[in-house]
Parts: sequence; structure tokens; C-alpha cells
Amino acid sequence: MTKKLISAPLPTLKRLPRYLHILQDLKAKGIKQVSATIIAEELGIDSIQVRKDLSTTGIIGKPKIGFELNELIDHIVHFLNWDNMTDAFLVGLGGLGKAILGYDNFKNYGLNIVAAFDTDPELLDTKVHCVGVFDIKKLEDLAQRMKIHIGVLTVPVSAAQEVAEKMVAGGIKAIWNFAPVKLKLPDNIIIENVFLSQSLGVLTHRLAQLKNTEA
Amino acid sequence: MTKKLISAPLPTLKRLPRYLHILQDLKAKGIKQVSATIIAEELGIDSIQVRKDLSTTGIIGKPKIGFELNELIDHIVHFLNWDNMTDAFLVGLGGLGKAILGYDNFKNYGLNIVAAFDTDPELLDTKVHCVGVFDIKKLEDLAQRMKIHIGVLTVPVSAAQEVAEKMVAGGIKAIWNFAPVKLKLPDNIIIENVFLSQSLGVLTHRLAQLKNTEA
Repeated sequence: MTKKLISAPLPTLKRLPRYLHILQDLKAKGIKQVSATIIAEELGIDSIQVRKDLSTTGIIGKPKIGFELNELIDHIVHFLNWDNMTDAFLVGLGGLGKAILGYDNFKNYGLNIVAAFDTDPELLDTKVHCVGVFDIKKLEDLAQRMKIHIGVLTVPVSAAQEVAEKMVAGGIKAIWNFAPVKLKLPDNIIIENVFLSQSLGVLTHRLAQLKNTEA
Repeated sequence: MTKKLISAPLPTLKRLPRYLHILQDLKAKGIKQVSATIIAEELGIDSIQVRKDLSTTGIIGKPKIGFELNELIDHIVHFLNWDNMTDAFLVGLGGLGKAILGYDNFKNYGLNIVAAFDTDPELLDTKVHCVGVFDIKKLEDLAQRMKIHIGVLTVPVSAAQEVAEKMVAGGIKAIWNFAPVKLKLPDNIIIENVFLSQSLGVLTHRLAQLKNTEA
């Protein structure tokens, strides 16, 4: 497949992986064809929305039949760039960094972590979950030489900005940031934040409130 | 400390853990006092916002001095209910579930996973990262008997709704949901979604677009 230049709005981009999970479940059940209506019902959202999202990716269904399941899966995977395994570096081997290295499943989403970096001398030149660990001093040079474009950032808050700048200096264009800080980087750098402590904070605070209300 | 009935808007709740990370960094550097201005500068946000957020939690700073660092940290930790370790069950020991069990750091945020559940006979009655694994059939009964209020949901999409309903039947009031599906549960159940594949999808799609633009 040749890569086409299609852009999609953020809400569509966020729904596509959810469609994919549903489609893969249906495939596992031996189903061969699927309609936007079925996807919409499974997810409890509007079928017009699903039809619109799918048409954004450029795929066209057949009237009354819908989509060939395999074709639709391949199409979405391709649209998300998940068929094109992307090599990435991970920096910061605390608990979260190690957990991410150990979570093999990101490979299904096209992410292949090929090296990890830390400052801890005890970790250097070892392997964690089969991935080699290098001194953070080598990050910039190795990223350039290996043409790495994705960085996974799992360092403490205090180091996040500095390490992110090193990633950018090494040619990294997209950062998956787990350090709960807003990075200040050039506009052309893609940043996706996952702030787990924020999410957990919302949950535990609301739970405490609920208990107060009930008490 | 007695628990007070204070509610906070969602954006404030989401910023508080970020303030906490900054404050803990400052504490590690030996700093004793801090102002809203310093926090604002560190995070690159407006100091009026910081002042407003902190006052929502009920703490009052001293003019010109600001806040005692330790007092402010304790205050935010308490407001987020993180000083009150909350026992939780985790259901679904795939890669992500195991990674979360292995990530000790959630204890700093008050989350203490005391048992895990799965359907895989090979895992039952073993321990994963020192946490006992039980048959999912026992979930409802054990949750009731142990008065568990938080469930961490890391099962595949196809099982998520059913397992979430079992959690609710067992008295669980708050679900940290990592399965990329919108759960349909009673309104009084607190749900926080973390959809990692969505976040990664946005990142990889945008990176592909960027490469197309540059090509």
C-alpha cells in the first residue's frame, strides 16, 4: 500500500483504535463482514458517527453488505500507521519504564522499543526485558545514527524537559510522555501525554467525596 | 485530619498531581517554602490559576511568604485522598495487568492492589509481583467481604463490560478502566478511562502524516 496524505480530526483518531478492538473481537468469532451499524451498537455510539469516521480513512463500504472485515481491519491499521513498525527509544528505567518495556503488546500498535536509556550505572549495559540499556549520554548520537523518530519518556518530572530536549536534538519527532509535566518543545514536535497519576487522582478524590456524601 | 467535603472542578483535580510532583522535587532540593508564582513558573502556567487551584483545596498561603512546603504537600495529598491507602482489586492479568502489578509506584498515590483475578487456570492460586491471583468467579464475593471500593480493569475489550458489572455487583464504586471501551454502568459509579492504544494511535498517525509532509 502506498501511504496517502489523509488527515483526520482528533476525536476520529481516538475512536479508530476502539473500532479496531471491536473488529478484532468479531474476527476472532469467525465473522467475515461488518456494518457501521454493528460497530456503533457494540460501542454504544451513533452509527452516523461511525460511518463518518470510516469514510475519513478513505474506505468505502458496499450498500447493504458493509465492509469485508479483514479489509477494514487492514485499512484502519494502515491509517494509524500501525502496519509500519516504528522503532523507538525509551528513556527512564524506573518502575513505569520497566513496566512499559515488559508490556509486549505495544508491538501490536506498531511500537518497537529497540533501546532504553538511564543514568543508573547499575543498569548500564544490562538488558531489561530483552532490551539493551545505555548511558543517557549516548541518546542523542544513537538516535541520529539509528534514525529513531519516537521517544518514550518515563523519567522523573525534574529530568523530563532536559531529556526531551536531548531527544529532539537527536532527531526524535514524536514523544510519548509519561512524565507529568507539559514539555516546552518546538511546534513541529508531536507530543502525546499520558498522565497516570492525574487519572488516578481524579478517581481517588471522587471516591473520597462519594464516601463523604454517603456518610 | 478529618475529611472535609470539598469538591473541585476536573481541570483543578488534574493539575494538583502535577503541582505535587513539582513540590516533591523542590522538597528533595531542601527547599522549605514555596509560592504560587514558583509553582506556576516551573509548570509554565498562569500563577493566578495556581493560586485559585490551591485555594480550592482550602489551604491559605501567607502574604509574601507563600506556603510551608511540607504543609502544602500534606494538604494536596490529603485532598486527593492519597494519604488514605485504598485497597483495590485488579482484574485481567495480560501484559498490561502484569505491568501495573509490577509498578510499585501507584502506592505513592494511595492505590494498594491487594488481589488480582483472571480466568487462566495456570495463573490461579499463584502470585504475580507478590499479589495473589484468584478465579474471577470469586471476585464479587471477595470484593463484598473485603469491602473493596476500587477496581482496576485490564481485561480484553470483549470481557470488559461483563467484568465491570461483576465489580459493581461486588460493591466496587470506582473503576480505573484500561480496556478501550466505554463502560455502561449506573451513574453513581466513578469511571476513569486510560486508553493507551488511543494515545499511541494519535502519536503514530501524526508521525506518519509529518513524514508524508516532509517527503
